[in-house]
Amino acid sequence: MKIKIDRHLLLTQLSYISKAIPSKTPLPALMGIKFVVSEEGLYLTTSDSDITINTFLPLEVNDTQVIQIDSIGSIIIPGKYFIEIIKKLNGDIIEISTFEGHYVIIKCGRSEYTLNGLDVSEYPNIELIKHDNPIHLEKQLLKTIIRQTVFSTAHIENRPVLTGVNFRYDADELMCIATDSYRLSKKVIPLNKLHEPFNIVIPGRSLIELSKILDDSHDAIDVYLAHNQVLFQIGNISFQSRLLDGEYPETKDFVPTTFGIEIKANYHELYEAFDRAALIARDQESKVVKLNILPNENKMLITANYPAIGKVEEEVQVEMISGGELRIACSALFILDALKAINKSSVIMSFNGDMYPFILRDQYDETTIQLIVPIRTE
Amino acid sequence: MKIKIDRHLLLTQLSYISKAIPSKTPLPALMGIKFVVSEEGLYLTTSDSDITINTFLPLEVNDTQVIQIDSIGSIIIPGKYFIEIIKKLNGDIIEISTFEGHYVIIKCGRSEYTLNGLDVSEYPNIELIKHDNPIHLEKQLLKTIIRQTVFSTAHIENRPVLTGVNFRYDADELMCIATDSYRLSKKVIPLNKLHEPFNIVIPGRSLIELSKILDDSHDAIDVYLAHNQVLFQIGNISFQSRLLDGEYPETKDFVPTTFGIEIKANYHELYEAFDRAALIARDQESKVVKLNILPNENKMLITANYPAIGKVEEEVQVEMISGGELRIACSALFILDALKAINKSSVIMSFNGDMYPFILRDQYDETTIQLIVPIRTE
Repeated sequence: MKIKIDRHLLLTQLSYISKAIPSKTPLPALMGIKFVVSEEGLYLTTSDSDITINTFLPLEVNDTQVIQIDSIGSIIIPGKYFIEIIKKLNGDIIEISTFEGHYVIIKCGRSEYTLNGLDVSEYPNIELIKHDNPIHLEKQLLKTIIRQTVFSTAHIENRPVLTGVNFRYDADELMCIATDSYRLSKKVIPLNKLHEPFNIVIPGRSLIELSKILDDSHDAIDVYLAHNQVLFQIGNISFQSRLLDGEYPETKDFVPTTFGIEIKANYHELYEAFDRAALIARDQESKVVKLNILPNENKMLITANYPAIGKVEEEVQVEMISGGELRIACSALFILDALKAINKSSVIMSFNGDMYPFILRDQYDETTIQLIVPIRTE
Repeated sequence: MKIKIDRHLLLTQLSYISKAIPSKTPLPALMGIKFVVSEEGLYLTTSDSDITINTFLPLEVNDTQVIQIDSIGSIIIPGKYFIEIIKKLNGDIIEISTFEGHYVIIKCGRSEYTLNGLDVSEYPNIELIKHDNPIHLEKQLLKTIIRQTVFSTAHIENRPVLTGVNFRYDADELMCIATDSYRLSKKVIPLNKLHEPFNIVIPGRSLIELSKILDDSHDAIDVYLAHNQVLFQIGNISFQSRLLDGEYPETKDFVPTTFGIEIKANYHELYEAFDRAALIARDQESKVVKLNILPNENKMLITANYPAIGKVEEEVQVEMISGGELRIACSALFILDALKAINKSSVIMSFNGDMYPFILRDQYDETTIQLIVPIRTE
């Protein structure tokens, strides 16, 4: 194998596939990048067993030759080192060749690296699950779903299924839910004739890495479902993730639909007030604060008290308030996470009393709710 | 005590004094900021025992009132919390007052904090050593001295005096030296009538923190020396550090003055070549690389070999070369550190054989040398 390749385009490909190079693995080949040059172009593959990413770079991009092939071939290249080297080389064109079947030689300017490679036969055989019946999804919609739900997944794996986001389609709407059982994010989008019904759980980490690959363009992407895998096809990038086993809990009864007390307030005012109150919160893990809704005074107080340090009172002027007075305690960090997932407009907070979950939502977005379970205090 | 104060100017003062707030201390008062309001303005003091910083903000800055005093007074305010609060408050003017002698109340917009303070009598009595005979030093010169030497100080304290930079004045010149015994940075500046002779060692950490306070203006600063302390007066900021005890080693015989082999090369070419070679260096702590100077071919080769991963060869075209062939091994990290302390111009590297220390210097700066001890290899 011997090619000359545009360094900047190679770097872009590497930035996609780097997300699936494991830092540790029992299988040394997985620390490498499967580098395959065919007559059509360059295929790169990485996999950490959970996520597999494959990219294709054709010989020409926008009518400009970006790969010049002297001879085709393939090899596994040490991933971490290869990426650092390509980043630091000084030049637009890099020559990459193999030597004696298991050495990779990288030349650029007056630099020459020889890396120990492995034969591609040592790379595990990972099948990409492409088939004839993909789901077409808008890139920006998928990115928004991930941003508005994934932070609510559980981090501790005593219930593994909760570390993922549940995607459920029933022929009318797509419902996406994440919960760690202390909070819940839910997005429901009306979508007709998307696909036959499905109910899958995609690992949160996979979605976070996928999200980094989704740029801000408005193209559609293709999503392929198989028994225990999902594949997202984004242009020339294939991003495949395993699915989580197990039944995702039914959360319908958990999410209230009627509320006795509601306020509407400005996003920035709310965010900054909770952010400042969190500074003095006693429990530095969850940053517990108390809310005090005072309909007669048309305001909400946020207070925190950390006897060793001091206390804080933040007053939020509300744009609308309905229902009676309420005192409720909750994690300021959960509130801040929920607010970050809301567009920067007016926020509605809806309550049913100090013992019941409450929700936050964007006034102008009916599709998404953020639910938080209050904390019981003395 | 009760004042109204410009939030942005208070933040600037806090950014100076924050550098001496210890993260741990047996004396709780030192976790606080000594906050003293007098008829003239606001004095802030912090100290971590090694470093003491004191700032003064007058009532008016550029003919604009920045502090409005209702009543003078003083208190110790929890440092870390106070700074975070002032940063996050939303408003230009903050009201700060004391309550029952040991509470601090901070009001801004619709936010109100009450922090537990301490009486200033609990703050240790730290005397600032100002006297009538300061040294006048240019701010930029001091900043350059620190930048070009402090990285060579020792980090491990088995010889505490090496964790500092030696400043030595003998009526003709100021000599500044740092060494961890594997490398040495030396700057010698001709300076007449600066002060009577002195020979002190300032802790490296103090200089690093001081350097962050030295902005890019060209004002002079006053340096006050006392038995075991040094004080830098920078406008309204007093920065005092303890000095290190012990005799600083004599390094004259350690630094060669004549050399058998010299090369001159472009700063960027050298830096990038060493940076790339370091990627494959076996010992990831010191990143050992080998230099091979080839006068007949008018070039230097930098090679590294990490059998588990691969090897690299970088070729550097030199602008000038004199003397015979040389092979020498050294830490690429030390070379990169030394290069960072050199202005981005032509660099001269001077050698006396593979067993002897070599030096790097800026072609246009005779005042500074960076010395590196080679590594013996098999």
